[in-house]
Amino acid sequence: MPYRAPVEDYNFLFNHIVGLEDVRATEKFAEATDDVIRAILEEAGKLCNDIVAPLQRPGDLHPAKLENGVVRTSPGFAEGFKAIAEGGWLGISADPEYGGMGLPLAMASAVNEMMSGACLSLQLAPLMSQGQIEALEHHASDAIKELYLPKLISGEWTGTMNLTEPQAGSDVGALSTKAEDNGDGTFSISGQKIYITWGDNDFGDNVCHLVLARLPGAPAGTKGISLFLVPKFLPNEDGSLGARNTLQVVSLEHKLGLHGSPTCVMQYDKAVGWLVGPEQGGMAAMFTMMNNARLGVGEQGIGIAEAAYQHALSYALDRKQGKNIRPNGSGTIVDHADVRRMLMTMKAETYAARAIAASCAVAIDMSNATGEAEWKSRAAFLTPITKAFGTDVGIDMAQMGVQVHGGMGVIEETGAAQFYRDVRVTSIYEGTNGIQAMDLVARKMMDGGEAANRLMDEIETHAEAARDAFPNMADAVWQATETLREATEWLVAQDDMDTRFAGAVPYLRAFARVLGGHLHLKAALADKGGPREKLARFYILRLLPEHAGLLVHAQSGAADLFALTTDELIA
Amino acid sequence: MPYRAPVEDYNFLFNHIVGLEDVRATEKFAEATDDVIRAILEEAGKLCNDIVAPLQRPGDLHPAKLENGVVRTSPGFAEGFKAIAEGGWLGISADPEYGGMGLPLAMASAVNEMMSGACLSLQLAPLMSQGQIEALEHHASDAIKELYLPKLISGEWTGTMNLTEPQAGSDVGALSTKAEDNGDGTFSISGQKIYITWGDNDFGDNVCHLVLARLPGAPAGTKGISLFLVPKFLPNEDGSLGARNTLQVVSLEHKLGLHGSPTCVMQYDKAVGWLVGPEQGGMAAMFTMMNNARLGVGEQGIGIAEAAYQHALSYALDRKQGKNIRPNGSGTIVDHADVRRMLMTMKAETYAARAIAASCAVAIDMSNATGEAEWKSRAAFLTPITKAFGTDVGIDMAQMGVQVHGGMGVIEETGAAQFYRDVRVTSIYEGTNGIQAMDLVARKMMDGGEAANRLMDEIETHAEAARDAFPNMADAVWQATETLREATEWLVAQDDMDTRFAGAVPYLRAFARVLGGHLHLKAALADKGGPREKLARFYILRLLPEHAGLLVHAQSGAADLFALTTDELIA
Repeated sequence: MPYRAPVEDYNFLFNHIVGLEDVRATEKFAEATDDVIRAILEEAGKLCNDIVAPLQRPGDLHPAKLENGVVRTSPGFAEGFKAIAEGGWLGISADPEYGGMGLPLAMASAVNEMMSGACLSLQLAPLMSQGQIEALEHHASDAIKELYLPKLISGEWTGTMNLTEPQAGSDVGALSTKAEDNGDGTFSISGQKIYITWGDNDFGDNVCHLVLARLPGAPAGTKGISLFLVPKFLPNEDGSLGARNTLQVVSLEHKLGLHGSPTCVMQYDKAVGWLVGPEQGGMAAMFTMMNNARLGVGEQGIGIAEAAYQHALSYALDRKQGKNIRPNGSGTIVDHADVRRMLMTMKAETYAARAIAASCAVAIDMSNATGEAEWKSRAAFLTPITKAFGTDVGIDMAQMGVQVHGGMGVIEETGAAQFYRDVRVTSIYEGTNGIQAMDLVARKMMDGGEAANRLMDEIETHAEAARDAFPNMADAVWQATETLREATEWLVAQDDMDTRFAGAVPYLRAFARVLGGHLHLKAALADKGGPREKLARFYILRLLPEHAGLLVHAQSGAADLFALTTDELIA
Repeated sequence: MPYRAPVEDYNFLFNHIVGLEDVRATEKFAEATDDVIRAILEEAGKLCNDIVAPLQRPGDLHPAKLENGVVRTSPGFAEGFKAIAEGGWLGISADPEYGGMGLPLAMASAVNEMMSGACLSLQLAPLMSQGQIEALEHHASDAIKELYLPKLISGEWTGTMNLTEPQAGSDVGALSTKAEDNGDGTFSISGQKIYITWGDNDFGDNVCHLVLARLPGAPAGTKGISLFLVPKFLPNEDGSLGARNTLQVVSLEHKLGLHGSPTCVMQYDKAVGWLVGPEQGGMAAMFTMMNNARLGVGEQGIGIAEAAYQHALSYALDRKQGKNIRPNGSGTIVDHADVRRMLMTMKAETYAARAIAASCAVAIDMSNATGEAEWKSRAAFLTPITKAFGTDVGIDMAQMGVQVHGGMGVIEETGAAQFYRDVRVTSIYEGTNGIQAMDLVARKMMDGGEAANRLMDEIETHAEAARDAFPNMADAVWQATETLREATEWLVAQDDMDTRFAGAVPYLRAFARVLGGHLHLKAALADKGGPREKLARFYILRLLPEHAGLLVHAQSGAADLFALTTDELIA
């Protein structure tokens, strides 16, 4: 059973769960009618099923290679990228002025999830370009926009993000790449960057790097960082390509997964670049890009969870083992209670994570369309949850998918192990999930918990309204929200940041659990007596109870974490 | 920081926690004095640190290969196996009559864990031989014992287990390999076996296969299965090697991990074999072997958890990132609360799983030494918990170890990813963890929950005794045990097996959680004010609360698992 993009689930989410009608009601997104959305999801689904998904195995078996300083991509990837570009998928949310479709981010996110489930290694290439398009739209000069955006949106050129250096990972402020003003409107960039996803390829005419660097005399830390656009080939004013820039791919990393996606060490030797945004304004520009990239990485986890589920289900429906134990069963392992438990978990978790991500995307769209502070803080609050929970679900479901396969799960030919390898990095890049959780309990709670409380109010109001239809489920969601509220109050009251950080990861997960319960309950109401009600019942009665233990953990403080000395940790 | 075998932790466990003094007080194990045990652990630790651990990376980078029908092992593996054999480690628990040391299984298990943490791919070779030694000791004729056991114990020959066939995995009774009586005391074995760990090697003079097969007219299912010993070379009576037998390695699997361990497809074409145990008595013989193998696989998970912890700790102590955030901190990421949370989790979980495994090994030793039914049922009850929890901890801690490494975690050179790949199969082979859990709630509860209740009585009695010293911790363990008891009563009362199976995995995990709390509480009492008390506090107050949510899940019944039709699962 080949991969099938979850088109119907998105139609359901958009129509019944996450309030896309509010987005469509804004002037900015008035063109995103129901018909348009259906047609676009359908078309994206076809692309993912027919063109992108068949590239997943070849990318793993034939990794990208560095040959004479040039990256040679996996078989079929050039054609795959071209198909994505020609379909206009690079610019779904991009400005129509430069060739984009101008559709809601909710749509772009849905397509990104589908593409991630189809072939995560390849999907990273458009994702990087999309991030660059967005950063340039918000922060670049008109001249840069006019020159670069049409090429990036059409896919003639591709984009990358260059943040990390060996000594500057999570602490990006420690970076030491230098920029010097050439006095002619250009800058000279020198330094080494690592972990550069799709740092080069053999299908784009040009590769455009957004590079964080430090101007002479700039203050230490993130405040002193500026952002530069540094292309592989220096473009002429008409967009034709001029001289080769002095930057190169030094090596590719040998990674656990994502073999089709070249992860480059990049060397810049007085490479020519242009400032994007103001001097010392690099971090603000990167944050624009990173926030949506966090949603994008969350979608990657969800895409792999979906693909791993489909793969495991297909195996379970086919694999005969043991007697035909159920009178009307299929005679395969899908009839076994524990296999069902795993498949139901995979299906229920994937829906929960997807619904959270779609809610986050809608909040970003509403924030962009209306400029309202409440939408902005909703988006800011949901982003770290979407990233961390989406990728945790991706990792856990890929792992469960291997388990459903039994011994075949660790034999590479079946593909179950590839999901497990490919998805692993998603909880690390674009800010580790620990950093997402710290962001949630620190920066996203500087409002005294207001954004959290508004969300919990909505969940409880909805649960009360659902009580007549589903007393048990509604009550479980309501009670869980109360427990979450107490924990939130406790966290907000802690002035010592370590005390909050010590409980950050379990708190984030508990919040996602409760959100998942809420979004399943909504689905049950929209599909009374149908499969979504049944799936909601499984989630709310079996998986939601996890929140209580997590919230005890979240309120345990930091002292015991540091009770052991370094020597005692080693012993 | 290279791998260091956890010698001190085992000395502590044996002296203070799991009651090895009872084992030593039996006649059978009277020679296992405290001095002997210390010396042996020390010696095994040295072997693991100095000889075995350096083979871990070469095994991954240079996988075992099949060349002209012969398996060529990874660089250094032949010397490594020789060192293990010469140290006498193959026969720690084997009968001294044939060259074994006759020590408790608790000792063998400790050494197996250490060796697994050092190099899991290589450790599988001695583990397979040990399983064969045990099966032959219990079930083979004297002639076979005298011919084979000294060679297997000395490591001149190696052993394998041949159960699985393509259509017969978890359902071993579906196997179709045939045995025919040659009328001269030998049998002709024909068929194909898959997933044969260390099915061949280039360092043993002979490879001896224990093969499950079916005699003509044997009943269907497991009842009709017999066990045969089928050597690669047919030995003469004096132990010298005669003709090559008609069996061969057809191919090696391309696996996610354990590249140094050849996983073979074996073909038997009228290969000559000898019956082990009575005709149709194959499953009974295999069960002897499998029970201890389950303990052994649990130890593998724990070994990887330990190694992944040490690896992650070493990285965290070295990696500078961000400001020096703690006044007396080391200035590396080990000072960050969330990194500490991960490291403390790894250390606390590894101890819990190790203490459970050691308790299981002691119960097996006591059962063997005394023949008492209570020890036998204790051993039987703890075996599936040890296997499933030990391997789950291994997988989860390897995954957490990758996370501690950040971006470096998915770069293969660091080794963190290798643990993640190598350990993954352990929750699958030797009976999937789902099957372990089903065994626990079905076969191991046929006593109406008596074995479970005796264990819980002990836990509660101990918690009451600990209340003066540690009121909070003791109370948490006592309360958790009560919740577990209610769930146990509920499960035992369910006659419908699907209802039990539907909650089997969460129930097993909750039981392990409570056992872990108990064994941490014991450690705290033995080390008041010391690091073990601090670690216990972390485990009992942060991780133990998970049990409650799991036990809700465990008592949810099977109906909702089967609520979705196959079509609805696909949709």
